[in-house]
Amino acid sequence: MPAAPEDGVLVRTAYAGICGTDLHLREGRLPVPTPLVLGHEGLGVVVSSGRAGVSEGDTVMWASSVSCGRCEPCARWREPTLCAERKTYGVNRPGAWADHIALHPGTTIVRTAVDPLAAMALACAGPTMVHALTERRPVVVGERVIVQGAGPVGLAAAALAQLAGAEVTVVGGPPGRLALAAELGIGHAWADIGADVGEADLVIECAGVPAAVAQGLRMARRGGSYLVVGQYTDAGDTAINPHQIVHRQLSVYGSWAFSGAHLAEYVRLLPELAARFDLARLVTTYPLADHARALDDVAAGRVLKAVLVP
Amino acid sequence: MPAAPEDGVLVRTAYAGICGTDLHLREGRLPVPTPLVLGHEGLGVVVSSGRAGVSEGDTVMWASSVSCGRCEPCARWREPTLCAERKTYGVNRPGAWADHIALHPGTTIVRTAVDPLAAMALACAGPTMVHALTERRPVVVGERVIVQGAGPVGLAAAALAQLAGAEVTVVGGPPGRLALAAELGIGHAWADIGADVGEADLVIECAGVPAAVAQGLRMARRGGSYLVVGQYTDAGDTAINPHQIVHRQLSVYGSWAFSGAHLAEYVRLLPELAARFDLARLVTTYPLADHARALDDVAAGRVLKAVLVP
Amino acid sequence: MPAAPEDGVLVRTAYAGICGTDLHLREGRLPVPTPLVLGHEGLGVVVSSGRAGVSEGDTVMWASSVSCGRCEPCARWREPTLCAERKTYGVNRPGAWADHIALHPGTTIVRTAVDPLAAMALACAGPTMVHALTERRPVVVGERVIVQGAGPVGLAAAALAQLAGAEVTVVGGPPGRLALAAELGIGHAWADIGADVGEADLVIECAGVPAAVAQGLRMARRGGSYLVVGQYTDAGDTAINPHQIVHRQLSVYGSWAFSGAHLAEYVRLLPELAARFDLARLVTTYPLADHARALDDVAAGRVLKAVLVP
Amino acid sequence: MPAAPEDGVLVRTAYAGICGTDLHLREGRLPVPTPLVLGHEGLGVVVSSGRAGVSEGDTVMWASSVSCGRCEPCARWREPTLCAERKTYGVNRPGAWADHIALHPGTTIVRTAVDPLAAMALACAGPTMVHALTERRPVVVGERVIVQGAGPVGLAAAALAQLAGAEVTVVGGPPGRLALAAELGIGHAWADIGADVGEADLVIECAGVPAAVAQGLRMARRGGSYLVVGQYTDAGDTAINPHQIVHRQLSVYGSWAFSGAHLAEYVRLLPELAARFDLARLVTTYPLADHARALDDVAAGRVLKAVLVP
Ligand SMILES: [Zn+2]
Ligand SMILES: [Zn+2]
Ligand SMILES: [Zn+2]
Ligand SMILES: [Zn+2]
Ligand SMILES: [Zn+2]
Ligand SMILES: [Zn+2]
Ligand SMILES: [Zn+2]
Ligand SMILES: [Zn+2]
Repeated sequence: MPAAPEDGVLVRTAYAGICGTDLHLREGRLPVPTPLVLGHEGLGVVVSSGRAGVSEGDTVMWASSVSCGRCEPCARWREPTLCAERKTYGVNRPGAWADHIALHPGTTIVRTAVDPLAAMALACAGPTMVHALTERRPVVVGERVIVQGAGPVGLAAAALAQLAGAEVTVVGGPPGRLALAAELGIGHAWADIGADVGEADLVIECAGVPAAVAQGLRMARRGGSYLVVGQYTDAGDTAINPHQIVHRQLSVYGSWAFSGAHLAEYVRLLPELAARFDLARLVTTYPLADHARALDDVAAGRVLKAVLVP
Repeated sequence: MPAAPEDGVLVRTAYAGICGTDLHLREGRLPVPTPLVLGHEGLGVVVSSGRAGVSEGDTVMWASSVSCGRCEPCARWREPTLCAERKTYGVNRPGAWADHIALHPGTTIVRTAVDPLAAMALACAGPTMVHALTERRPVVVGERVIVQGAGPVGLAAAALAQLAGAEVTVVGGPPGRLALAAELGIGHAWADIGADVGEADLVIECAGVPAAVAQGLRMARRGGSYLVVGQYTDAGDTAINPHQIVHRQLSVYGSWAFSGAHLAEYVRLLPELAARFDLARLVTTYPLADHARALDDVAAGRVLKAVLVP
Repeated sequence: MPAAPEDGVLVRTAYAGICGTDLHLREGRLPVPTPLVLGHEGLGVVVSSGRAGVSEGDTVMWASSVSCGRCEPCARWREPTLCAERKTYGVNRPGAWADHIALHPGTTIVRTAVDPLAAMALACAGPTMVHALTERRPVVVGERVIVQGAGPVGLAAAALAQLAGAEVTVVGGPPGRLALAAELGIGHAWADIGADVGEADLVIECAGVPAAVAQGLRMARRGGSYLVVGQYTDAGDTAINPHQIVHRQLSVYGSWAFSGAHLAEYVRLLPELAARFDLARLVTTYPLADHARALDDVAAGRVLKAVLVP
Repeated sequence: MPAAPEDGVLVRTAYAGICGTDLHLREGRLPVPTPLVLGHEGLGVVVSSGRAGVSEGDTVMWASSVSCGRCEPCARWREPTLCAERKTYGVNRPGAWADHIALHPGTTIVRTAVDPLAAMALACAGPTMVHALTERRPVVVGERVIVQGAGPVGLAAAALAQLAGAEVTVVGGPPGRLALAAELGIGHAWADIGADVGEADLVIECAGVPAAVAQGLRMARRGGSYLVVGQYTDAGDTAINPHQIVHRQLSVYGSWAFSGAHLAEYVRLLPELAARFDLARLVTTYPLADHARALDDVAAGRVLKAVLVP
């Protein structure tokens, strides 16, 4: 058990999520000091707390990153997700794939009371989309939205856009994922990649594949918006037609990661999200010891959301 | 002399501009009914007028396009430049490369009193950038702006951004153009394509070359904006790195053409623009009969702005 | 039966709404040529049509106003509701309180298939709030919203904000109205005027009473928004504390009337609104001949929405 | 000489400004612990520094307030000027009306090389208007702007709006102030309070008198904006006509105080501001010992900007 940092909080990990970033870390596509305890997503119970407002026994989630508050992005642009000194659990601080995790001062810690598996289903994707869809390009009630991608980020986008009063079409694969989304009522229509789904006021890229961008630029109506969220890792160049941006007079917004405030907002929205969609069904659990198998399943697309249980 | 259309205005053309679009029309890269009098830019004197507020003898400029007011972009999105039924002089209506031009009802006609060569220098580029820089992505005083392109659109962008209190770097070529821009005080710094010019709050693409987009995406600071104006014609695909949009959390705005209101605003700003920059020096005049030579000179980049004198 | 105007549409009126504006017209508080057929809200069946896309037998609603497309607000600011030459049925053109109404060219006409009483419930309030809540100050999913006013405009605001994912408190009276709103599920909480309802991200003024503004400015959280819609008629001055605007750093948005596009969007949202809320219950019908009694009932607050049946 | 706080910076005060807030502090209209060294504005030379990037001998200005970074306005809304725990020199920390001032960790400290009197002229008003005019409601090039008020805040608003490409009319008094503004070229036109100055795209309230708000609401054109900055202290209620907000469809923005980032931006803009306007002429200096006389002169409007010299 790690020592609780001074003014920090020690948490017994109940659930620790796996997501695409962890695959990249394993594959060495992101720089990371090793050996490191991975795991930037988690939910657990407070064991000891040096912070006002956080008590032993609280069930909590926490933000994966802590921004510095002093660099130019933090202090001048007030964009904490762009912080030049961001510390991230499971990336450059010990993470959640362990019995316990020590949360340092500055970490946003939020109590949650919903079904923990529902909370973990979109642990990373949910606050990422809160950032994208409440700050970068909010949905306007009545808009038509196309979501590219049927993984956790795509389903989080679809669910949030639906909550915001949009009419949502999810484009992605494989068919099993679309069928599950349809069963849970996430989205109003579902289509395979390449199907003709018409044009939308807002297209949200959650596919993570560079080639999706060229397609997405043609799915936004003239005067519409394209919100790019999925290109989190640098998967190289792709060919696009830049004339589309001008001729369609598009507004294209990138959205990077999320801050503690976005996690807090996600947790605040969780009861409504969980009441409307049976999120827990998106999750497959694995004992902590089976993390390699879980990573393989995620890599192969055999599961939608893998969650480790220490 | 064409007949003045009922409720329309007949103008004796004093100056008629040539711009990139005309090259594309000549090369058949844009669909156009032939034979057609070309010329979407002009300045002249009213010969007869059926419109209140426009009188014989007025020196005027007019908007190149008339939107329908009824289609979905016009009526629902209120984006007249995206009008599905746009009529454009010199494209699908007889244009300004003639002694006279008949302006139909609905055409925005604006009186102007500045040096006509100064007015013609940015006849098309000026209102295009008014649209882009007052509606699509206004400059905020004190911002650093990089303009990609040193043709008329690039210089219009630089001049307007400067008027708006930005610190402007113009990136483009050939060197003669940069030297002329420097001599006129358009921009604060000038650099060849490929030079390291750092990052900016706002990058404005006015190069018209697809490859410029990949570069421009890397010139915008994290959290910054990219305003794409130059990709007016479809010059095909180009490779970009879509991860830049997400990692830099960019806002990318396309801006398409201009409306009558943007022309009117350009003419309203002309006295200030002309007082600050010796715009007439950007212009090379040709007799109307020499339009083929003028087009050749434009195509070869031998002149910055060619203007025909009927 | 009036003659159908050339290129116009003749409609047999099935329902004609009464709203606050009509009271003001009767009381002479708005200038209007008399005698005039009143009625700016209506729903009916097309009897004869000179317009493509509108056919005999269609059940339609129509926009109450037609903007000119040429004045400065229309052409320069592209704000049709601010048109200096707006023509309005029942105000300066014959209206819907009659067996038939002649709709002039330029009128937005929209087919509708929902229960006509549900459609009439928010005939004027619905598109007014579409304008306010999709253009002037859109709701962001998860926001807390306080609506001041429990009349048709207030209930339209609450219903739309709810559709947009807000948590809505309705403040107003009399108690019977709040009880009806609660019964229909419009809003999540309901409170009498003067009750302490805390602060909200967005406060929407739909009370129409000047004194509501001073209260509303104190209900918006620091950094929040105040959307003022109800002060449609000039009911004189009221005392406010302007320091609240600065100290709370508020954004205050006025929203004036609606355009044809907003009506079309309202009709597009009607199936969803009507499925979620039993809107028809807001309506009390009267034979056309009883319009004086209906106006009295509206003036006295005895009915929420009066609709005449010719 | 106070001790430099650990990790803090000790500055020998060269100039310390007086502004309206100080009058309110003297009059007891703002709560403040006494006895306290007043002075929230200053410029001086670093005597000792525990902070990287700040060295002995540097000429610096510093932000008057330090926000906490943890409260809801700081962490959730990212609005540091709304911080619930803001610490302000000269208000709840010892200020600049002294030989030396101790700057605590977290204080924004910026080097400056322009004429110190020019820098002090708008020491508080400048960054306040940077906040208002770059974040709350940026000027768009070519807009017509009316500034209400000819004190330091009004002149800062006019100067910045001019830098941003606006056509500026200053409305205020007494005539001597307007004459000085005209002499310095701050604004393009000047008018007494109550004069008919037409309507503007943007009206900026810098008068500080509640009654100005009722007037300002009628100076903004339909569809225009009203930016309220001057109502910093609660001077009580005033009568306005709320119908103006709706009928004119105004956007009204309050702007509260400034943060360290706004001061840094002001100092970055100072060379351009000082080159364009002879700001030092706005200042009257007094020996520190004469602060009571200086306050009297400010209260009586005998000087535009009083600056103490320790
Ligand atoms: Zn940082
Ligand atoms: Zn994750
Ligand atoms: Zn059109
Ligand atoms: Zn052109
Ligand atoms: Zn009009
Ligand atoms: Zn009505
Ligand atoms: Zn704070
Ligand atoms: Zn001050």
